[in-house]
Amino acid sequence: MIYLTRRERFNSAHRLFCPELTDQENYEIYGKCSNPNWHGHNYELFVTVKGEVDAKLGYAANLSSISKIIKEQVIEKVDHKNLNLEVDFLKDMVTSTENLAISIWRELEDHIKILGVDLHCVKVVETENNYVEYYG
Amino acid sequence: MIYLTRRERFNSAHRLFCPELTDQENYEIYGKCSNPNWHGHNYELFVTVKGEVDAKLGYAANLSSISKIIKEQVIEKVDHKNLNLEVDFLKDMVTSTENLAISIWRELEDHIKILGVDLHCVKVVETENNYVEYYG
Amino acid sequence: MIYLTRRERFNSAHRLFCPELTDQENYEIYGKCSNPNWHGHNYELFVTVKGEVDAKLGYAANLSSISKIIKEQVIEKVDHKNLNLEVDFLKDMVTSTENLAISIWRELEDHIKILGVDLHCVKVVETENNYVEYYG
Amino acid sequence: MIYLTRRERFNSAHRLFCPELTDQENYEIYGKCSNPNWHGHNYELFVTVKGEVDAKLGYAANLSSISKIIKEQVIEKVDHKNLNLEVDFLKDMVTSTENLAISIWRELEDHIKILGVDLHCVKVVETENNYVEYYG
Amino acid sequence: MIYLTRRERFNSAHRLFCPELTDQENYEIYGKCSNPNWHGHNYELFVTVKGEVDAKLGYAANLSSISKIIKEQVIEKVDHKNLNLEVDFLKDMVTSTENLAISIWRELEDHIKILGVDLHCVKVVETENNYVEYYG
Amino acid sequence: MIYLTRRERFNSAHRLFCPELTDQENYEIYGKCSNPNWHGHNYELFVTVKGEVDAKLGYAANLSSISKIIKEQVIEKVDHKNLNLEVDFLKDMVTSTENLAISIWRELEDHIKILGVDLHCVKVVETENNYVEYYG
Repeated sequence: MIYLTRRERFNSAHRLFCPELTDQENYEIYGKCSNPNWHGHNYELFVTVKGEVDAKLGYAANLSSISKIIKEQVIEKVDHKNLNLEVDFLKDMVTSTENLAISIWRELEDHIKILGVDLHCVKVVETENNYVEYYG
Repeated sequence: MIYLTRRERFNSAHRLFCPELTDQENYEIYGKCSNPNWHGHNYELFVTVKGEVDAKLGYAANLSSISKIIKEQVIEKVDHKNLNLEVDFLKDMVTSTENLAISIWRELEDHIKILGVDLHCVKVVETENNYVEYYG
Repeated sequence: MIYLTRRERFNSAHRLFCPELTDQENYEIYGKCSNPNWHGHNYELFVTVKGEVDAKLGYAANLSSISKIIKEQVIEKVDHKNLNLEVDFLKDMVTSTENLAISIWRELEDHIKILGVDLHCVKVVETENNYVEYYG
Repeated sequence: MIYLTRRERFNSAHRLFCPELTDQENYEIYGKCSNPNWHGHNYELFVTVKGEVDAKLGYAANLSSISKIIKEQVIEKVDHKNLNLEVDFLKDMVTSTENLAISIWRELEDHIKILGVDLHCVKVVETENNYVEYYG
Repeated sequence: MIYLTRRERFNSAHRLFCPELTDQENYEIYGKCSNPNWHGHNYELFVTVKGEVDAKLGYAANLSSISKIIKEQVIEKVDHKNLNLEVDFLKDMVTSTENLAISIWRELEDHIKILGVDLHCVKVVETENNYVEYYG
Repeated sequence: MIYLTRRERFNSAHRLFCPELTDQENYEIYGKCSNPNWHGHNYELFVTVKGEVDAKLGYAANLSSISKIIKEQVIEKVDHKNLNLEVDFLKDMVTSTENLAISIWRELEDHIKILGVDLHCVKVVETENNYVEYYG
């Protein structure tokens, strides 16, 4: 069993906002991250797949295929977008790093499986000081 | 003459948008960076000052004082903000990395001088693949 | 289950020194790291917690609360300090990266639990070439 | 149980090439990575060992000894070398990052055990956008 | 006057080799870098242009256009290539980082000028420990 | 004219302390950096030389020779040392990053000249948030 990781990046606007709460309550919980005028990040996305190494070809999966899946299923939908307003797979969710990781997992899982490997980890790095990992 | 640099960071939303142009023209020039729903970045700001080293104290300027000036004059005004909507010193400007660097220079120049050193360079890193430097 | 990581940093002096050994023996085992006049590092501390994502708030734990705990329980006690002389929770220990990670775990575990998540990993990076991870 | 990681680096030439396939088939599978005139990388190698912390000496294993083993068993054999032509432990293999990680594990495992710890993970970083981890 | 920098990357094989010298002399001068079987690097290329900021559009030059020029004039010719064997603009040259920077300058200078800005600096990073800058 | 840079690293203990001032005054000026029990850093040293490229050999100076000079003249004297107590070329100085850069310049200048190039810049990075550059 081998673990293969691909990094992709996207730059997005978002705010932390829970619609069941008032603006004041949102501010108390999320602080400046709930600014109604948005802020944004250079997100780094690390997608790790696991599988057996093909004895002939020497790889677990073709890195270009993994990259293509991530770009089509995730990056094109979130890059230079507003995560709260424009991303179907984040609709009605708090756009926390946690929810980003879980939602990206769901977008990728089946597509990765077609390559003959399993999705192992989705890691989303929001700033140099915080990141989230989800293992399904 | 010695050059002393301090790094600070801020996370903001913005879009590249020139009000004299139509939405279509903006898109043709700025591409996905002109998305009306905003996107954002983890900006890195490197402020370099130059001066003589104080023979007794051993420094050109107190790094804490430099940091305090950058935070008060710049970071508090741009961090977790929308650069197009909420920043006085960027009012009516295209929020390009170039204009960010020039505008931050203007906010800092006089305050840095009070420390007995001169502002030498403002460097704004927008992504790992592009940055701007302004020397006044 | 989601894993959330926060990075904090501290700059400290230390030496590798085992009081049960002579200076010569210490030098043979720890090399230049046992220099009696100390040396030091820019340490990076990555604290990973694990828990369920709150369905309403969208996070496993409030990142600001995690950061506050790390700063109060660890950073304030070790930053710009001598790890061998000034840190209660390292008293009578070899100030190796291993012992640092284990001791920081002990300082953090109960405080993190109050946030409704569990401490998962303490990672201490001593240089760009070596780090230690402790999972309890 | 503690996990201790050491990073070493090597710069090598290689190509992805499966001898059972034609040049055209190699190109279709590996793309530009199968260029017969070679290309190369600055590889980063992270070796993680696990073990108990020695109560007296405060470490799981001596970092210098780990570094020495990695240099003797791996780095000297691959650094500034052609991975396809000059490395015994990669003979007749596709020099993929996967096979590199697995083969390096085999070179290190027994030597690490002599230090009283177990090899836990071999991580090979090929570019800033992809890496492989192998846990035996 | 503003300075705008774009980073691109390429992975290549090369060797340091001076055809006027014997293999032995090459080895004495360049050490392991003269290995006849090649080695390679993940090169980072930083291209800095300087110019006035367009008062209306807010930028010195369109970053996409700069990136396109670098990719067409340089990256496509060197990426996943052997710098000694396959690159016209390095023909008959020692493929040192110095010569790389100077030759890349020559490939870029006229094309950058068409954008209305001047090439200011070509920086080539060969490893994390060495890089070269050329200012024309 | 080409600019060639080599990075080396050292880990040292120090404190900011001006002997002409009382402990209280030192604390007011340097803050926690004046802790009498020391603190420390992973310093990064970037040494830039400038010169003509040798038409035959293709380099401005042999990188190994530059590295050897830096190690012999600087790194061996400061690495795993106390900058205030053990470094002759810092004797009676405030061990600020500014004084470090200037003093390292003095240690290197003549030795670099022997290689047929001129010392251009000494850059000392103390933390990820601050560094000093000295150009003689």
